[in-house]
Amino acid sequence: MPGSMFDLRALCQALPTGNARAEASASERQSMLTKPPGSLGRLETLAIHLARWQGAGKPRLDAVHVLIFAGTHGMTKHGVSAFPAEVTVQMVANFQAGGAAINQLAKAAGATLGVIPLSLDRPTADFTVEPAMSEAEFLAAVQAGMDAVPESADLVCLGEMGIGNTTAAAAVSAGLFGGTGDEWVGRGTGVDDEGLKRKAAVVDLGLERHRERLGDPLEVLRCLGGRELAAMLGATLAARRRSIPIVVDGFVATAAVAPLARLAQDGLAHVLAGHVSAEAQHARLLNRLGLEPILDLGMRLGEGSGACLAVQILKGAVACHNGMATFAEAGVSAG
Amino acid sequence: MPGSMFDLRALCQALPTGNARAEASASERQSMLTKPPGSLGRLETLAIHLARWQGAGKPRLDAVHVLIFAGTHGMTKHGVSAFPAEVTVQMVANFQAGGAAINQLAKAAGATLGVIPLSLDRPTADFTVEPAMSEAEFLAAVQAGMDAVPESADLVCLGEMGIGNTTAAAAVSAGLFGGTGDEWVGRGTGVDDEGLKRKAAVVDLGLERHRERLGDPLEVLRCLGGRELAAMLGATLAARRRSIPIVVDGFVATAAVAPLARLAQDGLAHVLAGHVSAEAQHARLLNRLGLEPILDLGMRLGEGSGACLAVQILKGAVACHNGMATFAEAGVSAG
Repeated sequence: MPGSMFDLRALCQALPTGNARAEASASERQSMLTKPPGSLGRLETLAIHLARWQGAGKPRLDAVHVLIFAGTHGMTKHGVSAFPAEVTVQMVANFQAGGAAINQLAKAAGATLGVIPLSLDRPTADFTVEPAMSEAEFLAAVQAGMDAVPESADLVCLGEMGIGNTTAAAAVSAGLFGGTGDEWVGRGTGVDDEGLKRKAAVVDLGLERHRERLGDPLEVLRCLGGRELAAMLGATLAARRRSIPIVVDGFVATAAVAPLARLAQDGLAHVLAGHVSAEAQHARLLNRLGLEPILDLGMRLGEGSGACLAVQILKGAVACHNGMATFAEAGVSAG
Repeated sequence: MPGSMFDLRALCQALPTGNARAEASASERQSMLTKPPGSLGRLETLAIHLARWQGAGKPRLDAVHVLIFAGTHGMTKHGVSAFPAEVTVQMVANFQAGGAAINQLAKAAGATLGVIPLSLDRPTADFTVEPAMSEAEFLAAVQAGMDAVPESADLVCLGEMGIGNTTAAAAVSAGLFGGTGDEWVGRGTGVDDEGLKRKAAVVDLGLERHRERLGDPLEVLRCLGGRELAAMLGATLAARRRSIPIVVDGFVATAAVAPLARLAQDGLAHVLAGHVSAEAQHARLLNRLGLEPILDLGMRLGEGSGACLAVQILKGAVACHNGMATFAEAGVSAG
């Protein structure tokens, strides 16, 4: 448990490397199954990925858990969203009542759902003026994310809810990878051209305000992010230590875990991108991180919706990997 | 039931047009659900598509049936495949024993599977010499496809097995849309460069041999296709009349139904493309037909595997459409 920024940085730089033997065993099995080599495409590499990061030649997806972290944002006062800030609390109630998209998608995928509201009555500070979170607030949010990961699960999906958080994600992306607000913002829940300009200006003010801290990826997340982003980073760290592969959702979830890639070369090696969203800069961010999305369906909802839908593809990959007959078993001539 | 090529052409040109009222009802419902408008992207348009073609404002996917048609091809004598011709029969046995990829994917999607071998002991004629099928053989295969569609189902997926049939699909595509063999062939199950050249040459010979018949889309399929292709066309026709939307799989299944688009402007309106395969010209063929694939996972197996995997996305779309709360129900502020 990170008691300081120093501890957290050390945690991010001492990551388990996955199980190479399980990966090799899964690769060998793929070559024996009744199909032309490589003909299942991404289903083959996804099964092998899960094998490595679960540490099992035959991976399982029986226990899939979807985590939605919710946070509120001080910078919403600048008019960066098409929806009022109170929608964050209203949508958390909708998640809890079972009425949101993610409830239906989790049920369809046979996944359990955890909703973790993070101090919704205390929005982060306006990052154009001061850091979004104090060190203590940031570390508490990271810890909340760590604590939310089950001791044992086959897979965890990370999603979020937070009016204003595509602006935070744009600021974090620019802070980590350079570029201006204009180059990283998108329409989020649907802002018009004026709203888009306001988002870019807010990001630029934040970058300028915290410029001297941008060399440290964790400081970028603390100063420009939000509690739900910090929690997703914590959950990703905890999952790595528990041999649980992660699927991230859209632009906000991807930005949240991006600091891990800056702190260690293989920091996101256990992470899959569930989809590429319609939010303008998500594809660019995935590209910078070397993450290849599983789905591309023009979605831009958040809530973990794209990650959870991708679970169905992963389930197909695992079903083929574990259930198919080999050439020898089926008496089929190899090519 | 088509007693002649004339009857079949008439059937292809007198298609039901779908239920516009169900489509409008589904569109209206989408606008009331607790999400920013359009934020579920393709999941919204897919749910609306199913509504129109099932004729129900709230579509269902409880009864999904996957059909695999298998056929054998006379032109395999020219060395167009990386696998020997007897693999078609061996893989049909593998489907029946439950060991193939499609068995696992159908089970994961909660779909039933029908395997229909079509006169496997009588390969089609070598199309470089004579029409692949006589009129009687072709009409019998179309009829077998029609008969394989259940009287009632919520969705049917179309897949195939047939060593040599990517060559047939390339020939059909070239026959329908122009171009040479070289422009339409791909590596199929994995032929080398020499095999690819042989495939292109075989297609060119077939096009030359049947040139005077290529003006008629059904003649293209009869002369250059195969029984499994004819059956997929028949199944697509029968499904349209029974208000059952269709999901086609890869290059071969798409080529099989392509004549319908040439015979009537909306001939494929009830058809979804499950995925774009890694077979070289599938993307081009989909583009010519105006079909936007749901998945892009580098798969090239056939068997209906890509179509069946896409069912999981459709199930997510339907789950959201039918199960989500409206803004009014959930007390969430609209933007």
